[in-house]
Amino acid sequence: MRPAEPMTTTIYVCTTCRAPDDPSPERAGQRLYAHLTQTAESQGSDVQIVGVECLSVCKRPCTIAFSAAGKWTYIYGDFPADTGAETILAGAALYEAAADGLIPWKSRPDALKKGVVARLPPLFGSAPSPESVAEKDVAL
Amino acid sequence: MRPAEPMTTTIYVCTTCRAPDDPSPERAGQRLYAHLTQTAESQGSDVQIVGVECLSVCKRPCTIAFSAAGKWTYIYGDFPADTGAETILAGAALYEAAADGLIPWKSRPDALKKGVVARLPPLFGSAPSPESVAEKDVAL
Repeated sequence: MRPAEPMTTTIYVCTTCRAPDDPSPERAGQRLYAHLTQTAESQGSDVQIVGVECLSVCKRPCTIAFSAAGKWTYIYGDFPADTGAETILAGAALYEAAADGLIPWKSRPDALKKGVVARLPPLFGSAPSPESVAEKDVAL
Repeated sequence: MRPAEPMTTTIYVCTTCRAPDDPSPERAGQRLYAHLTQTAESQGSDVQIVGVECLSVCKRPCTIAFSAAGKWTYIYGDFPADTGAETILAGAALYEAAADGLIPWKSRPDALKKGVVARLPPLFGSAPSPESVAEKDVAL
């Protein structure tokens, strides 16, 4: 699947994540990717779901990221392969609703509080400068 | 400083990183940012250096990222505030020379092998799809 058009929310999913002690022949990341695409379709969600061969966060499977043009990009880990899809899609809806991608702390599901791996300011866009956005973000 | 124009390499530097047991009143990330801008200027480097208030990798100071339009974005941690600048700029030169942002494994400095926090595929660009690029990347 191609990366999304500007302003559409993209969920990147690491398809090479391995879960510890997982006997399944299919990698955990691949299973999460399948669950996400199926669940998004059943919900009629307009998010773009893009499988990526390794997001390089191998110690915290499963790993995903939210991104959209002009918004902060967030990378999250620690999602269970077989039950994480609905939590991720609910988080993506909150991300899509946030003009700058910064979900207010009180609204963040626990998985997005504890699971954060890293974030990046809006890339190559016309969004506010990183500095001006960061000062408003009380939930770093 | 504004984010870089497309194709220019941007180094994002977390200016809020704190180093453990650091008695300096100035945060480690802020010192690294200052060293980077001074060293890049003295080298005549054309990279863009952008300070960011928190990249949310607080357990691995100091944290930076390399990004450019159409390339993979890489986030790295564990850089020493006062001696990391030259290593980072050497890495940025290798990143700039790599058309897709994937520095060949053999060429990567140890700091870029051990320090990787996460990576993201090219965002919103016309670069090859994540899948096709990832298959060529033998050093995930």
